[in-house]
Amino acid sequence: MLYFTSDYTTGAHPEVMARLNETNLEHTVGYGADPYCTEARQLIREVCQAPDALVQFLVGGTQTNATVIDALLQRHEGVMAAQTAHINVHESGAIEHSGHKVLVLPSHDGKVWADEVEQYVSDFYRDETYEHMVAPGLLYITQATEYGTIYSLAELEELSAVCHRHQIPLFLDGARLGYALASDAADFTLADIARLCDVFYIGGTKQGLLFGEAVVAADPARLPHFLPLVKQHGALMAKGRLLGVQFGALFKDDLYGRIGAHADAMAMRIRQTFEQAGYKAAIDSPTNQQFFVLPNDVLDRLSAHVSFELWGPRGESETTVRFVTSWATSQADVDALGELLRGF
Amino acid sequence: MLYFTSDYTTGAHPEVMARLNETNLEHTVGYGADPYCTEARQLIREVCQAPDALVQFLVGGTQTNATVIDALLQRHEGVMAAQTAHINVHESGAIEHSGHKVLVLPSHDGKVWADEVEQYVSDFYRDETYEHMVAPGLLYITQATEYGTIYSLAELEELSAVCHRHQIPLFLDGARLGYALASDAADFTLADIARLCDVFYIGGTKQGLLFGEAVVAADPARLPHFLPLVKQHGALMAKGRLLGVQFGALFKDDLYGRIGAHADAMAMRIRQTFEQAGYKAAIDSPTNQQFFVLPNDVLDRLSAHVSFELWGPRGESETTVRFVTSWATSQADVDALGELLRGF
Amino acid sequence: MLYFTSDYTTGAHPEVMARLNETNLEHTVGYGADPYCTEARQLIREVCQAPDALVQFLVGGTQTNATVIDALLQRHEGVMAAQTAHINVHESGAIEHSGHKVLVLPSHDGKVWADEVEQYVSDFYRDETYEHMVAPGLLYITQATEYGTIYSLAELEELSAVCHRHQIPLFLDGARLGYALASDAADFTLADIARLCDVFYIGGTKQGLLFGEAVVAADPARLPHFLPLVKQHGALMAKGRLLGVQFGALFKDDLYGRIGAHADAMAMRIRQTFEQAGYKAAIDSPTNQQFFVLPNDVLDRLSAHVSFELWGPRGESETTVRFVTSWATSQADVDALGELLRGF
Amino acid sequence: MLYFTSDYTTGAHPEVMARLNETNLEHTVGYGADPYCTEARQLIREVCQAPDALVQFLVGGTQTNATVIDALLQRHEGVMAAQTAHINVHESGAIEHSGHKVLVLPSHDGKVWADEVEQYVSDFYRDETYEHMVAPGLLYITQATEYGTIYSLAELEELSAVCHRHQIPLFLDGARLGYALASDAADFTLADIARLCDVFYIGGTKQGLLFGEAVVAADPARLPHFLPLVKQHGALMAKGRLLGVQFGALFKDDLYGRIGAHADAMAMRIRQTFEQAGYKAAIDSPTNQQFFVLPNDVLDRLSAHVSFELWGPRGESETTVRFVTSWATSQADVDALGELLRGF
Repeated sequence: MLYFTSDYTTGAHPEVMARLNETNLEHTVGYGADPYCTEARQLIREVCQAPDALVQFLVGGTQTNATVIDALLQRHEGVMAAQTAHINVHESGAIEHSGHKVLVLPSHDGKVWADEVEQYVSDFYRDETYEHMVAPGLLYITQATEYGTIYSLAELEELSAVCHRHQIPLFLDGARLGYALASDAADFTLADIARLCDVFYIGGTKQGLLFGEAVVAADPARLPHFLPLVKQHGALMAKGRLLGVQFGALFKDDLYGRIGAHADAMAMRIRQTFEQAGYKAAIDSPTNQQFFVLPNDVLDRLSAHVSFELWGPRGESETTVRFVTSWATSQADVDALGELLRGF
Repeated sequence: MLYFTSDYTTGAHPEVMARLNETNLEHTVGYGADPYCTEARQLIREVCQAPDALVQFLVGGTQTNATVIDALLQRHEGVMAAQTAHINVHESGAIEHSGHKVLVLPSHDGKVWADEVEQYVSDFYRDETYEHMVAPGLLYITQATEYGTIYSLAELEELSAVCHRHQIPLFLDGARLGYALASDAADFTLADIARLCDVFYIGGTKQGLLFGEAVVAADPARLPHFLPLVKQHGALMAKGRLLGVQFGALFKDDLYGRIGAHADAMAMRIRQTFEQAGYKAAIDSPTNQQFFVLPNDVLDRLSAHVSFELWGPRGESETTVRFVTSWATSQADVDALGELLRGF
Repeated sequence: MLYFTSDYTTGAHPEVMARLNETNLEHTVGYGADPYCTEARQLIREVCQAPDALVQFLVGGTQTNATVIDALLQRHEGVMAAQTAHINVHESGAIEHSGHKVLVLPSHDGKVWADEVEQYVSDFYRDETYEHMVAPGLLYITQATEYGTIYSLAELEELSAVCHRHQIPLFLDGARLGYALASDAADFTLADIARLCDVFYIGGTKQGLLFGEAVVAADPARLPHFLPLVKQHGALMAKGRLLGVQFGALFKDDLYGRIGAHADAMAMRIRQTFEQAGYKAAIDSPTNQQFFVLPNDVLDRLSAHVSFELWGPRGESETTVRFVTSWATSQADVDALGELLRGF
Repeated sequence: MLYFTSDYTTGAHPEVMARLNETNLEHTVGYGADPYCTEARQLIREVCQAPDALVQFLVGGTQTNATVIDALLQRHEGVMAAQTAHINVHESGAIEHSGHKVLVLPSHDGKVWADEVEQYVSDFYRDETYEHMVAPGLLYITQATEYGTIYSLAELEELSAVCHRHQIPLFLDGARLGYALASDAADFTLADIARLCDVFYIGGTKQGLLFGEAVVAADPARLPHFLPLVKQHGALMAKGRLLGVQFGALFKDDLYGRIGAHADAMAMRIRQTFEQAGYKAAIDSPTNQQFFVLPNDVLDRLSAHVSFELWGPRGESETTVRFVTSWATSQADVDALGELLRGF
């Protein structure tokens, strides 16, 4: 079987596992106060060029989104996000569980547009009854988006400008940030992200770790009393050093960049493979998620040998599918996929 | 340095790490629907003699408590717990974050008494204004308690009887359940726990895993729609199989029992060591946490060579300390501790 | 000045005030356990032909929506409502404050369509990842809607059928229910509402009371432990009899019906008046809210003599306005409005 | 029947009803933006000597406590209160519903002691694990307390000093503040309260209004964005002017002071009457709530002619009872009570 189902179907990258094994018998204090977390925080501050940054490690994406958004919003405020955003669709109401409304913006292949954010906020305060409505108190974006697309540096700067003009923080969900950074289409660095976003997180679960997300706020005053809030959200690991060890492995010798570059390269080859076989990409994604519309008979024959996800419900005659790459995707896998496609 | 700080200062037991390494490169589906979780669930059902049980894996203790309690309580209800209970003291308000009040009962070395539970519930419904008060809707106990003490089978049966007479579920926090089960003082089995408690969890974080808690409800109807609630609480792991692999390792060849027995034996020897050196145990704990009152000069000299926790604030002349054992505690460590004590 | 701003700009209908004055010095028990509440409950049960109904009085609309929705939803569920629904737009996030997501359906002049509800629920459970999404657990509708429109009996029956096929309760916000019932377009009775909706409320604030909303559930099992929940939501009045006295006045001698009929008749004449002056109704509303698109110069001249609301932002050349009637609207007011319009 | 059950068993004071009647037919804007609210706010600012104060009217006590506490607390914080405090006992979990823990202090006849507050806060930050615990973020006190007792000016100054030393706001629940102010034992004014408490409220429901509580913050920056939060809590009245009209009536011609003085005088005579009959006061209360321990046979005979509340469960031979006065308590009622007592 060839696996293109997702970027979280295996364990950790071997370099990460190696470090977990090497450190396994050591004793350290808990809850992230250990030397491995300290070191990983420092590595992240350096690559982000944010020497004072607060860096806090959490376990998973939904819990990170819920905790950060809860920390950033005042009670009368909600979080603006694209209709298709993970927090609006696929987190079982975790944001609302903390008492906050998701304020929906149009999604353009997963992205929001700065002028539509501007419009939303301006319209809001022009409405005389605005105190009876949920105030836009935060903008949430994903990079890469749920559709594999990415914001350019110019777009990020525009969004950041709109937000700061209205004193609204900007929060970037980087569950797949490494695949965005490594993309040929990327014209931004982690330092740009850290400069333009009030808070963001570097996803580890989907990029080579067993689990883990690193929340970064260049200005730590953005997240006061964050540790008790992480604990309150059930997101503080007892054996916190597991996160430090893993993120240390990810940012030493730029494993993070290597994984991103490899997965993106494999994704581009998959796209080429499909296009050569006559199936156009459904979305112009430059990252590790690729979407294609396949005739149902092709889909069915492929399913016998290849694992991948349907993207939405099965259509009557054709269906959109998603192919995802990771560090574990090999050139051999992609070649085999090509052979299969050519055989149909 | 000798380490008796806690049972979560190292990584995983080597047998657990071995299984994580062996399975690391395999592809599985996410969120706990993989074969390793299925197998681990089955092993737990067997040892609990609860063939239909719901078994759901979560990551950490606070998140497990918050999620289960949220699942079991109706909105007008609160959870009864000892004054000293982890949920009342050390979870940064995670229970209240989900909207629930902790209803405080007296703590007897960490335990609640059945007659006091009975009194609380009876008094509540005798009060004419009870609809203006938070109804007792759940009883939370810990086994072993925060003080290392354990409920006997008779005590558990009494608590279970009081609860069920009032149609109140009983939830047992088993973060250190294995140390209770393995204790010489224990007269109960996992099957007893599963029979007497509506819901309980088997702690892994403190007993040889990297992380992980296994929630068990012998009657799955006790926890309807539990998966979306786990997700909503940010407690659903993407790479869910990590929990299955680890719990599989814990319950195959009874690693769980072996770890418990070893740690408890080491704890008893530590207690003996202290007592022989003239320091009485502060609490009569038969499990892996031991408490002693030490003169401050002894405490200071010991601190140079041994890592352990103060239990409460440092006193003027003497201070209560906690020593904790785990699978990683060796007889050599305990011997070395004895030599140090004899040397003062 | 002529007042058509809203139906809550005056105090109470004189018959209601009279009863408050008559009973003012009496002593009764608090929190709604008094004879006036008992009597008002009975009157409402009779007119609803629901002899066993739970009838609970609350103070205002937002608090009633928040409390009932919190009572009806399980934690993993959200409430379906039209995009334009009061709970989605104008309650400052009260629903999310209780932890629940509003699941948005298309609005057709304020109404939802049964087939779109059916589609939403069916699509939800066809999605393999539905446990990662907020389940539709309740349908919320308004009658009359925020746009003055009403559901016909057939439409209510369809909605009720869809809901019950999926075991989803139907909740009707009747803040302006009396104006719907009294409309010439209405083909349903309060008994139909009570039969088809699991829970609904009879609005008093907007129909002649100082304040007050009466929640009705024909089957009281739909709202177990409702009183403590009302208290928890800060919605239980100490002097609860004020609600009983007022609802008693409203339902004795059918003041409720008389107010509705009067206000609707005035609304129809206002519509006629505008149409005769050449301004078409923007929405085909058969109840006490009427909407017109006016040229801005007409709007400005009118504003000097008449109080009314803009419906949305002022347009460049023309603007939608809302005119609302109540028991306090007189034929003389409507005539005077007509003269003004003819004078422009 | 003689009524001493509570201070909320009748409607409004006749002077208040008169104003409601006089203004009933007027049209005003909703939600508290009307001239009556503006005027009442101004009257309250004057009597509080707080010219810039935010004054916001809410409907009832539980909702006021829940809304203010939610506004003042950060998410990782809880509210300190006496064990016996209304928010800890009799609000059905309204505080926890908003996500906050009540941190319990010892109750001394309903009061907390400044040195115990100091101790609690100091101990908290001395605990190394304090970030795993709920931080004390607010102090809640009642004046008069649930036991009728009052804090002296010196005690209020001490509490205020402790709070401000730790940058913790002080919130005073003044549901019965007027009875405290009017007491012979009082050595403080409303201006003192406004100066010493960051936020407090003036109770109307229990002192002559149909309903209504006026929240006051001398420094409005203490309650930013309070209006949407009031709306979110379901506490914003559509016909908001009803609160302005009533509080206007209460503070013009010092009806507030007159009601307080009358009720306290009646209470003192009741106490004298019981003491002359040989029944000592159970608590030394200088305000409108008086507590006595009565033999059960006296209690039973009294119950045939007098309405009052048991304070706690009925004892085996004797029971504590509560007698409450209000503006509606007459000297004749008290005389009649005296005759009854003398007759036993």
